[in-house]
Amino acid sequence: MTDIMLSKSLAVFPGSFDPLTRGHMDIVTRALGLFSQVTVAVLDNPDKKTLFTLDERVELVRDSFKDFGESVRVERFRGLLVDFMKKSGAGVIIRGLRAITDYDYEAQMALMNKHLCQDIETVFLVTSEEYSYISSSLVRQVASLGGDISNLVSPVVMEALRNKF
Amino acid sequence: MTDIMLSKSLAVFPGSFDPLTRGHMDIVTRALGLFSQVTVAVLDNPDKKTLFTLDERVELVRDSFKDFGESVRVERFRGLLVDFMKKSGAGVIIRGLRAITDYDYEAQMALMNKHLCQDIETVFLVTSEEYSYISSSLVRQVASLGGDISNLVSPVVMEALRNKF
Amino acid sequence: MTDIMLSKSLAVFPGSFDPLTRGHMDIVTRALGLFSQVTVAVLDNPDKKTLFTLDERVELVRDSFKDFGESVRVERFRGLLVDFMKKSGAGVIIRGLRAITDYDYEAQMALMNKHLCQDIETVFLVTSEEYSYISSSLVRQVASLGGDISNLVSPVVMEALRNKF
Amino acid sequence: MTDIMLSKSLAVFPGSFDPLTRGHMDIVTRALGLFSQVTVAVLDNPDKKTLFTLDERVELVRDSFKDFGESVRVERFRGLLVDFMKKSGAGVIIRGLRAITDYDYEAQMALMNKHLCQDIETVFLVTSEEYSYISSSLVRQVASLGGDISNLVSPVVMEALRNKF
Amino acid sequence: MTDIMLSKSLAVFPGSFDPLTRGHMDIVTRALGLFSQVTVAVLDNPDKKTLFTLDERVELVRDSFKDFGESVRVERFRGLLVDFMKKSGAGVIIRGLRAITDYDYEAQMALMNKHLCQDIETVFLVTSEEYSYISSSLVRQVASLGGDISNLVSPVVMEALRNKF
Amino acid sequence: MTDIMLSKSLAVFPGSFDPLTRGHMDIVTRALGLFSQVTVAVLDNPDKKTLFTLDERVELVRDSFKDFGESVRVERFRGLLVDFMKKSGAGVIIRGLRAITDYDYEAQMALMNKHLCQDIETVFLVTSEEYSYISSSLVRQVASLGGDISNLVSPVVMEALRNKF
Repeated sequence: MTDIMLSKSLAVFPGSFDPLTRGHMDIVTRALGLFSQVTVAVLDNPDKKTLFTLDERVELVRDSFKDFGESVRVERFRGLLVDFMKKSGAGVIIRGLRAITDYDYEAQMALMNKHLCQDIETVFLVTSEEYSYISSSLVRQVASLGGDISNLVSPVVMEALRNKF
Repeated sequence: MTDIMLSKSLAVFPGSFDPLTRGHMDIVTRALGLFSQVTVAVLDNPDKKTLFTLDERVELVRDSFKDFGESVRVERFRGLLVDFMKKSGAGVIIRGLRAITDYDYEAQMALMNKHLCQDIETVFLVTSEEYSYISSSLVRQVASLGGDISNLVSPVVMEALRNKF
Repeated sequence: MTDIMLSKSLAVFPGSFDPLTRGHMDIVTRALGLFSQVTVAVLDNPDKKTLFTLDERVELVRDSFKDFGESVRVERFRGLLVDFMKKSGAGVIIRGLRAITDYDYEAQMALMNKHLCQDIETVFLVTSEEYSYISSSLVRQVASLGGDISNLVSPVVMEALRNKF
Repeated sequence: MTDIMLSKSLAVFPGSFDPLTRGHMDIVTRALGLFSQVTVAVLDNPDKKTLFTLDERVELVRDSFKDFGESVRVERFRGLLVDFMKKSGAGVIIRGLRAITDYDYEAQMALMNKHLCQDIETVFLVTSEEYSYISSSLVRQVASLGGDISNLVSPVVMEALRNKF
Repeated sequence: MTDIMLSKSLAVFPGSFDPLTRGHMDIVTRALGLFSQVTVAVLDNPDKKTLFTLDERVELVRDSFKDFGESVRVERFRGLLVDFMKKSGAGVIIRGLRAITDYDYEAQMALMNKHLCQDIETVFLVTSEEYSYISSSLVRQVASLGGDISNLVSPVVMEALRNKF
Repeated sequence: MTDIMLSKSLAVFPGSFDPLTRGHMDIVTRALGLFSQVTVAVLDNPDKKTLFTLDERVELVRDSFKDFGESVRVERFRGLLVDFMKKSGAGVIIRGLRAITDYDYEAQMALMNKHLCQDIETVFLVTSEEYSYISSSLVRQVASLGGDISNLVSPVVMEALRNKF
């Protein structure tokens, strides 16, 4: 398989999504304006403890985007992201940068992925300011302590979090 | 004129380009993989002193991309970037992030431009590591002091700089 | 005059306010919850070119806070901030930190002011996320180019900016 | 219970305090100049392994501030910080910013806490430069390896650390 | 033992080296231009899980530098770094700063080590831009997922990683 | 002239020194522990307005280090730093990093200088925490407003500043 087959109109948005937040949804929605299809790639990493199982995380993403039709696909992946992309034929990685963000880490990953596959481009979008303080880990923490997260996640994720705690 | 006419396959790469560097060229080349046309928009800001005149800066960009055909356009603009984009029908702003970069400033501009026109998206690409230390101002400074800049700019820019100093 | 007379319920919010933004107003409003009186101290710095004159800047702050009564005072100052504070009897400096901010610079100033007067405390508040991308210089720039700034400044400041350009 | 009862003269300084350092003590001492009472709220987080038990951490804070009388209270808390504050009637969260600090994380927490309870204000003070390199984790590490920490913690904490290792 | 015996021509490059990368080798090579001898000090920290055992890490460093003769020594250390240095008679700590780096953490450690022993100097070198995105943890991750790391580590380290996974 | 003649025991500490601060002196003193000779290279940049003339800045550095003998040399330079170093035969550039610093700018300059001359090494030392908030520009500003700077600069610099204002 050669790199030349990777399509620059197919984008992948990789992450743990433990769980999906409105910040993630903002990025996917805006990426859809730029690319014909966005695949939300849910990381299957057995070494990392997650609150939701892989199946649950995939299901929550699927439910939250169920009105988007074919343009948003949800898949699980493990292993090297660039290998998943070659298999999918997708040439673009989407990442969200928050005003409050670990930019240095993101730049490091983008350069490493470019090193691993020159034909894959990482594209950064800036998360809207109203989601600038939302991360999955903070959502988990606030929800576990009984805080109100209704503005931070979709209704299906909120219910799933309520069931966990 | 409504925002709905802005095309997400037309991208604008705005800047002073005083002068164009290989870092800029890297971003344009990679943006061409993502968008059908990239307009290099050279800022006409009478308040800011530049080494090269507006005409010279436009010419240097044009010469450096002369082998790219219709896919790279070069235009001058003044006033609000979002107004230029509405007039051009372009819906995407391209910005390069260096590993060494003023990310905070870039995020501020992206949020402000989104505030001014919700339909315009700012897309960040990470400059290749070999250009991570190149900026127009540093190129000007090194060239003015007689340093070797042959790897930092295109041949036409190098000659133009040599003529200036 | 000894430091012991400085009151920790009197706060000073220093700046150029060229012009006052809604981000500044957010900080003053929240500081009023913490201190009995907040003095907006408008810097008179002959060496720095401003868009609005000192008188205009003071007037715009005064008009924007005219419904706040005695709790918000507006004064001009020049010279060392700590000297102004000793004269005013105020023991607290208020500064706003945006998510997108020059934190390093702010920390440097806070340590220097503490060095100059041990009895003065610098207190930082985080600007609300909806104002995270607003700065006076960006407001000036957008307004000068005809952009819509109605959500970024008070009505009196907006009119003043319209008259300038 | 409504938010309106929260007092802006009661401040809470939350943390793990594992153990209390002179940097923490510097912040409390300075916060006392601004607020009538400061409650050091020691986090009871069963999920996080600590060197000192909750009881030990509370005791060390209490002993270190035993000369401060009623103005410094020490309490344990678990759950959401904003809930603890509503119960205490305290309207101000105190945080120390070191010159070397994780400002981004602090800003994220401040915005999240404001989202959870609009009436609570987070106030940042800059730690004195002589404590800029001290953190609890570094103190634990240095003490565990036999390094001299006499200038970094109070005498009671130093003795407690000596007993641990 | 007094500090006065520490030699400023003997440098120590401390780390976990799990495993050694080309970024590390770049720093050692350049440090050799500045100091007569560089000791690579491999951390023996029983609390931290590593991919390679202490013996393996030491061996990989030794093999990678086997052509450097006496100028590069490899040693294991545990406990306080400043104690190791006093024992070795070395007065200089070498650290590499990547363009993408945790500078704040590095500054904190440098100030703490200076506090622990005034006579020890920490010297920072900037890693070459081509290694700016390489860290041991990222190398481990990419290798574990089958990615190509031949440009990121020495041949002996590459073979060792291949045997692990 | 070939690079091979550059000595790694000769270091250059370049800057504007407008004026020299105790932070600068701290760096020179510590660099003397590492290198046999440190040349303070005072920048002659006709384009940059300085408070002190080139002659005054050189004189103030010379006076402040008059007890250091031959180990500290003071020279003026203009043009490319690497050219000055080749002429001097010095192979090391010294830079101070404050905890509060523009690290990104420093990394950019270090990589550019390495690009211009592979044989020159930039070495960073961390300024002591007590000088972490001192910069020449802040010293000028405080002195011009009548603030006490006796702990921030040497006695000769303090007197020179007093004469200026």
